[in-house]
Amino acid sequence: MGIRIGVYPPGPLNAITDVSGVRVGHVVCFEGERTRTGATAILPHGGNLFQDKVPVALAVFNGYGKFAGATQIEELGELETPVVLTNTLAVGRAIEAINHYTISQPGNEKVVSLNAVVGETNDSRLNDIRAARPTVDEIATAIETASEGPVTEGAVGAGTGTVAFGLKGGIGTSSREVVVAKETYRVGVLVQSNYGGHLKIDGRDYASLAEHDVDGSIVIIVATDAPLSSRNLKRLANRAFGGLARTGAALSNGSGDYALAFSTAEAVRRTPERRKGLTLTPSLSNDAVSPLFDAVIEATEEAILNSLTMAETTEGYNAATGRPSRVESISLTALTRVFPSE
Amino acid sequence: MGIRIGVYPPGPLNAITDVSGVRVGHVVCFEGERTRTGATAILPHGGNLFQDKVPVALAVFNGYGKFAGATQIEELGELETPVVLTNTLAVGRAIEAINHYTISQPGNEKVVSLNAVVGETNDSRLNDIRAARPTVDEIATAIETASEGPVTEGAVGAGTGTVAFGLKGGIGTSSREVVVAKETYRVGVLVQSNYGGHLKIDGRDYASLAEHDVDGSIVIIVATDAPLSSRNLKRLANRAFGGLARTGAALSNGSGDYALAFSTAEAVRRTPERRKGLTLTPSLSNDAVSPLFDAVIEATEEAILNSLTMAETTEGYNAATGRPSRVESISLTALTRVFPSE
Amino acid sequence: MGIRIGVYPPGPLNAITDVSGVRVGHVVCFEGERTRTGATAILPHGGNLFQDKVPVALAVFNGYGKFAGATQIEELGELETPVVLTNTLAVGRAIEAINHYTISQPGNEKVVSLNAVVGETNDSRLNDIRAARPTVDEIATAIETASEGPVTEGAVGAGTGTVAFGLKGGIGTSSREVVVAKETYRVGVLVQSNYGGHLKIDGRDYASLAEHDVDGSIVIIVATDAPLSSRNLKRLANRAFGGLARTGAALSNGSGDYALAFSTAEAVRRTPERRKGLTLTPSLSNDAVSPLFDAVIEATEEAILNSLTMAETTEGYNAATGRPSRVESISLTALTRVFPSE
Amino acid sequence: MGIRIGVYPPGPLNAITDVSGVRVGHVVCFEGERTRTGATAILPHGGNLFQDKVPVALAVFNGYGKFAGATQIEELGELETPVVLTNTLAVGRAIEAINHYTISQPGNEKVVSLNAVVGETNDSRLNDIRAARPTVDEIATAIETASEGPVTEGAVGAGTGTVAFGLKGGIGTSSREVVVAKETYRVGVLVQSNYGGHLKIDGRDYASLAEHDVDGSIVIIVATDAPLSSRNLKRLANRAFGGLARTGAALSNGSGDYALAFSTAEAVRRTPERRKGLTLTPSLSNDAVSPLFDAVIEATEEAILNSLTMAETTEGYNAATGRPSRVESISLTALTRVFPSE
Repeated sequence: MGIRIGVYPPGPLNAITDVSGVRVGHVVCFEGERTRTGATAILPHGGNLFQDKVPVALAVFNGYGKFAGATQIEELGELETPVVLTNTLAVGRAIEAINHYTISQPGNEKVVSLNAVVGETNDSRLNDIRAARPTVDEIATAIETASEGPVTEGAVGAGTGTVAFGLKGGIGTSSREVVVAKETYRVGVLVQSNYGGHLKIDGRDYASLAEHDVDGSIVIIVATDAPLSSRNLKRLANRAFGGLARTGAALSNGSGDYALAFSTAEAVRRTPERRKGLTLTPSLSNDAVSPLFDAVIEATEEAILNSLTMAETTEGYNAATGRPSRVESISLTALTRVFPSE
Repeated sequence: MGIRIGVYPPGPLNAITDVSGVRVGHVVCFEGERTRTGATAILPHGGNLFQDKVPVALAVFNGYGKFAGATQIEELGELETPVVLTNTLAVGRAIEAINHYTISQPGNEKVVSLNAVVGETNDSRLNDIRAARPTVDEIATAIETASEGPVTEGAVGAGTGTVAFGLKGGIGTSSREVVVAKETYRVGVLVQSNYGGHLKIDGRDYASLAEHDVDGSIVIIVATDAPLSSRNLKRLANRAFGGLARTGAALSNGSGDYALAFSTAEAVRRTPERRKGLTLTPSLSNDAVSPLFDAVIEATEEAILNSLTMAETTEGYNAATGRPSRVESISLTALTRVFPSE
Repeated sequence: MGIRIGVYPPGPLNAITDVSGVRVGHVVCFEGERTRTGATAILPHGGNLFQDKVPVALAVFNGYGKFAGATQIEELGELETPVVLTNTLAVGRAIEAINHYTISQPGNEKVVSLNAVVGETNDSRLNDIRAARPTVDEIATAIETASEGPVTEGAVGAGTGTVAFGLKGGIGTSSREVVVAKETYRVGVLVQSNYGGHLKIDGRDYASLAEHDVDGSIVIIVATDAPLSSRNLKRLANRAFGGLARTGAALSNGSGDYALAFSTAEAVRRTPERRKGLTLTPSLSNDAVSPLFDAVIEATEEAILNSLTMAETTEGYNAATGRPSRVESISLTALTRVFPSE
Repeated sequence: MGIRIGVYPPGPLNAITDVSGVRVGHVVCFEGERTRTGATAILPHGGNLFQDKVPVALAVFNGYGKFAGATQIEELGELETPVVLTNTLAVGRAIEAINHYTISQPGNEKVVSLNAVVGETNDSRLNDIRAARPTVDEIATAIETASEGPVTEGAVGAGTGTVAFGLKGGIGTSSREVVVAKETYRVGVLVQSNYGGHLKIDGRDYASLAEHDVDGSIVIIVATDAPLSSRNLKRLANRAFGGLARTGAALSNGSGDYALAFSTAEAVRRTPERRKGLTLTPSLSNDAVSPLFDAVIEATEEAILNSLTMAETTEGYNAATGRPSRVESISLTALTRVFPSE
């Protein structure tokens, strides 16, 4: 679209996978006239996540959602599974898929407890959400096919049936590079956009073109290679809501607004050895983290806009009304009108 | 056992079902040499829970657990489904069971979003927890067979395979009657005990007889017919940990300690009519709630002791070691020794 | 400035005092070359606040601040004193002033406990903050002179020495009218702006003209005549950060970002009679509050911009460097450049 | 009293000062017939606390209190001042005293922001709390005279006028030694007891001898030389409420129950050098901390009992009734009756 959000440079892919080691996988369930859903899996690294846990934190701006794994994240500050995004009524199946995946991995033969992390938004405006898709096996596919490299955006994975600002939303991603204490770090953001408000693009009002459809939700995943404690990851996650607010989000009662942030730095992983007793862990001090905060605001705003601009007009089924539905993609003509001479 | 905990009188059943309307259902999975698990469902009333929501709050003392539904409870303060207790790796299936149950109820044909509430503890010291029991259908049975009246305690339902203080734990329940502002209210508590520490019975040390096995977890469900706001229900839930501490709980890193409290008072239910705009809701003021707090401490301590005294010696399978296991019930002889001449 | 923020109409004064009963008082300490500070008091109603408490909630986006009264607000959800804003090192004296004021009021002769509520930001870039001004008596003046009607904005009261986006900030206020369930309610916002970032005015970047000075803080006071529970007031307060983010706030490590929201509705006041036991309280349901949320976002953004546009260039003393300092007001010429032909 | 609480050994002084570096100072205001109050200061180490901050966390069980400094502790996890305990209406003066102390220390000439930490309970049953004692200067004395070594307990410092279980309470302290991962660590606890309930001593009911006076408060300070992150310090602080519950605390609406925990380990201090960017910090892993949790439960229970047994019968003034008052110390005769033949 030719819009540049913010002041920090993006990474080479402008995607969450610019953070080294991060993998993303999608499964799309697009069948007949009613099924428009899917799942997206995000893996912090390519190893055994249960054995080599990563520090993590969850920020909840409006907790109208079914996010799984929240209380253990808060208590222990560690992520030990893939993160799966899917639809509201598929959270139980996503937990099953994560559990099966984890206990089946080599090295996890004695695992009897694990904290599956699942985010969701409600795609029932385009999807027959009551029909129990994606299945456990379909969600497993998203996990198993997750890979590094470019990330498909728009009406894909957990964004297959989502709607934002009355327009077709979906999956979007973006990244930033930041220098802190002479080291370059990256932050990457991936969103599942499904909320509403008065759409703003880089601050300009676009509201007149978008249905003012305030409810819905957004789940925001933030990855960084900066070594951060779970406390500072929580603060980092919280900044994602700054980017959300800048897009004109209504932050309404019915919108479940969640941000999860994890660090992929090898030295902060909680390996079996490091979990035994005293460990020596690097981390950026409180006084050093502000540039990362700023970068998350920018990357989140851009990831949301990418989720809109990359999504295609979709026809489906409105599960609450029982009728066919259609949601338009954001229109290039309209954009021209908003940015007349730039 | 002849022990009386505290100063408030119990209700007629000394059970959570003394709170009018509350229903409890169990499913037991006890098969072969390895399956020792189950589920317990608690329903705040006998109507359509999704349509007539009840105020609720969750208190987390140590969040090493997979409690489902936590963030929406915190945000909205309402419960719209049965509460299911089960084992750690069955949470996804319990969500599925609750979702199926809810969207299938008459009147819920257009429901596309619901917040399933599931608590768990880890029964892997007696149960092959990796073997995916109870199933979705089995958990559905616990919900569908829930009833008023006496509650079976001990090695039943979600307590079939749990262990407390190295002894056989399980499901326990108790209730209290309290006069507040000239009205008599009841509080009822149901626990799934699966934790450790230095066992105390009514303050006397029983530690020498119990293996000092600190990890594990406990989920505590508190029901009351007092009209309380979700804020005061959170405070009520928190007091359950006072009862927990009095039993000698180690409150260790690995123990997931959760308490959920809801009010069954008809006038505080969030019916479709009351959800539309301005509502007039009765509630007890902050200054009036202390006797209810005290009663929850007592009922929790007693419910935990009941979960121990009602449970029978159980042989099963330790999923972490892959070997057969056996956990003894608390012994009457031992109790005699602790209370020599009283 | 001719900028209109958002879609809801402001109240007649476009000030927090549009919410019936709210009083605001300022004290300015502007003396010699070094003293540039003050205090601002906000009173929810003109009666005895300790006897007739109002529901309240505090939202903390970044808790780098010395906000007094936070934990009791969270626990009890009630405000029983004036709210005072002042500088960082004056919080103790503000508590003293509030305590003296409260225990001296007729009817409070037996009061032995009260929860003084004080917010602060750091005005040390223009003020000799270590010199212990305002005094207890000066702060008392702000409380005692608080009145209904128009509110002075800019470099006044607690905003006398504050700096936002490297420009002179201070006190700003705004209000909105919203129809919910056929009733018209008002929300009013008052801010003490002292933070930084990349300044945006109604979405347009103004960053090139403002020093990128990220640290600092903001305290946001939200008043409404809508009958809301403390739980929904917390959600309302949280939305103020949406308005903050839209101004380009960096939300940095060193910025203490707080929002306090209270309801002035008579029927929700916690009078001595209503604190005794069972009360019937009106409140807007969760499903009805979204328009109020939206209005708070708008009013906060506008109140912040008002704090900038109403403040005058100020010369003072930088307490950290020990040198004279000067902070420019936002310039009309600059604004013309930003909004070329509109 | 010859009672031994728990299984871990105490340190040599059985006091919070067993944790190396910790200093405690008291000021007593006992004058005429009405003044029965004071302050107690706890310093984590003998250096410049603002420059060499220590990790800290606050746990709030019931937030009916005026604890100062709470939100910044939560956000940044660091303590940069002495901790002062005093009476409810002296919190403002204690902040002033801490501010004066800190900005006057050599090396702090440019300090313009600091987060004073103050806990309080209400001594108005014996003290004319409205009479503004202790003064700022008196509180400063407690800070300046703080020293290592034995700690005076009972009716002293912030405990001069406090009441617990209807008996004379006050300051109590205790410590424990714990081996974790082959290293011996200490935890020390100091309490200001001023709450009520059904008194239990090592589990035995003592309620019949104590007025059932449920309101009041307790502030619990936990020090440890174990290197813990602020996250695990919060969990450690939380366990203090386990010890509180075991004494029969009613945990009532009106009781402000707070626990603050800090680590004195040199390697976790946030020195100017370590605050600049990347730091390497030792800490005990989640899996290793349980023995410390257990020790805090024990030390808290014992510190509370010490606060009772060391306090002397006190005559004073009840500020709420305006009449003289008298509170008895716990009686040895009574104890004999409770422990008949032991």
